[in-house]
Amino acid sequence: MKLKEIGEDRIIKELSREFSRRHRRLVKGIGDDTSVTLQAGGRHLLATTDILIEGTHFKRGWTTPYLLGRKALSISLSDVAAMGGEPLFYLVSVALPPDTEKQFLDELYRGLSDCGKEHGAVLAGGNTAKTKGAVMVATTLFGEAPAQETVYRSGAGPGDVIYVTGCIGDAALGLRLLKKHGGAALKRTAFRKPVMRQLDPSPRMSVGRSLARKRLATAMIDVSDGLVLDLKRLCEAGAVGAVIDARRVPLSAEFKRLFPAAGTTDGIRRALTGGEDYELLFSAPEKAAKKISALSSRDVPVTPIGVITRSKDVCVTFTAGRPLKISRAGFEHF
Amino acid sequence: MKLKEIGEDRIIKELSREFSRRHRRLVKGIGDDTSVTLQAGGRHLLATTDILIEGTHFKRGWTTPYLLGRKALSISLSDVAAMGGEPLFYLVSVALPPDTEKQFLDELYRGLSDCGKEHGAVLAGGNTAKTKGAVMVATTLFGEAPAQETVYRSGAGPGDVIYVTGCIGDAALGLRLLKKHGGAALKRTAFRKPVMRQLDPSPRMSVGRSLARKRLATAMIDVSDGLVLDLKRLCEAGAVGAVIDARRVPLSAEFKRLFPAAGTTDGIRRALTGGEDYELLFSAPEKAAKKISALSSRDVPVTPIGVITRSKDVCVTFTAGRPLKISRAGFEHF
Repeated sequence: MKLKEIGEDRIIKELSREFSRRHRRLVKGIGDDTSVTLQAGGRHLLATTDILIEGTHFKRGWTTPYLLGRKALSISLSDVAAMGGEPLFYLVSVALPPDTEKQFLDELYRGLSDCGKEHGAVLAGGNTAKTKGAVMVATTLFGEAPAQETVYRSGAGPGDVIYVTGCIGDAALGLRLLKKHGGAALKRTAFRKPVMRQLDPSPRMSVGRSLARKRLATAMIDVSDGLVLDLKRLCEAGAVGAVIDARRVPLSAEFKRLFPAAGTTDGIRRALTGGEDYELLFSAPEKAAKKISALSSRDVPVTPIGVITRSKDVCVTFTAGRPLKISRAGFEHF
Repeated sequence: MKLKEIGEDRIIKELSREFSRRHRRLVKGIGDDTSVTLQAGGRHLLATTDILIEGTHFKRGWTTPYLLGRKALSISLSDVAAMGGEPLFYLVSVALPPDTEKQFLDELYRGLSDCGKEHGAVLAGGNTAKTKGAVMVATTLFGEAPAQETVYRSGAGPGDVIYVTGCIGDAALGLRLLKKHGGAALKRTAFRKPVMRQLDPSPRMSVGRSLARKRLATAMIDVSDGLVLDLKRLCEAGAVGAVIDARRVPLSAEFKRLFPAAGTTDGIRRALTGGEDYELLFSAPEKAAKKISALSSRDVPVTPIGVITRSKDVCVTFTAGRPLKISRAGFEHF
């Protein structure tokens, strides 16, 4: 059987079932945003690894080495944010063709370094390797959280409100603009915001950490592969379902302006399944609503979009409460 | 300037100088076998990342997915051994073409898992990604050691004896046999030992840990890129030099039998610069000789091969104490 016929989630699930082993210090292995390991001092060590491959995750003509470095770390930071943790250190492996200009690597590391500085993460090691093929950047990030504060994907209970940070769909729109206009899209002022949301996502460290510290979120995940797909993962982990109202999912002014079908079912479908938003999707008891709205800001709004249900289904309503059929919930890695 | 014109060591050094930052919990970042971070409970967390790329580090026809998985973890384990640490957890990223058979990934993970079990390391997470290009396996391993026991590359003092575990040169011989005979070399009984030393190296966890626990080694590194090159790294880190006697460097019976030039300067040069032995190279005070020889076994001999000097040069003697000229100290990654 071929990988593309199975799909990433099932592959990971099967690998996890087959190869996960118990260890007194492994709190959470495969199947969450980061692994969680108990440090000697009682704090959770959070570790996550991500990989960006040329031709799969980026095109050299559509980005810059600097932005590539930033993104490589941001997507790992987003995973740590989704656990409610604080980032600490990161390791990087870069594979490049031997005739690559040194400047490429410098710029890439500068992107990593700047992004790390903004969020308090420090480069702790790494290596470079030669490849005849695609450029590749693999990042491993360690973070930590007090053991009692870590927020898992599981934990959502029926009646909990579902929230999402920021706006959804801009990263997918940015990708669309890059596909249509190539690298030129980077230079068009009107396209800048969605294109940068695709190339330089903002991990929501502060909201993630606050939710954890105040013990407000019952479950959390970052939106990497599409809101609907990641919501399904959160629901599956908690053995619950969800109903979300697509009209409440926040869309940016740029999305509404630049995406011709923004207000239609096609438009909302694309926003909900596009992926790479790196926003936080979480559930919280209804009684936490006031404290959660206090975390909402103009830059990073926190918006209630639905509710956790007892059924195992994830249902999206759009016009007049009618369910919106979504055949492809998000980005499948194979 | 192109990467291949600079060389990996200089690239890493420059990146380290430019991008390393201080952090109260980062004990050692770039420039050693693993990063060292202080855990909350006072133990060092050791973390290392490695990457195997098809066409650069392996050929699919020359190995099996199972052996590839084993090697991906073994080379990281060897790094933790070289710090005197114990392995704990690992993360894996695998990039594969979408039409890869699922069995390939299963076998790869089985190799990882079996190797992990043998050394007490547990899979803690990972991901898979699609690539149109080369197959790639990136491993991140965490280990730990009591803070006062961690062994660094630096620390060798003039007069210290230089030791190496196991035999040197078999992995290079194995590669030579694979280049000559292709995958068929895997099946030839006479070739099996050196070929398996290339495809399935044995990290020296037990010797590494014992040296650390008993505080015998003043400096340590694993032999990944060639004994001479890695000895140069150890000397540079400690601002010392070394003289080693090539005739004392242990060669296996297979090396002597299968490598026609084994007894010549060409033969010894290849053994000393071939790389991928994943043996431990360390220095220790002369007075520790007895305790160190107690760690030596038939399977994993520990052999004194030279001495640390005050000069900054690394000198290899062969016939009658005459220096052996070595133009290429080991494997350069670019």
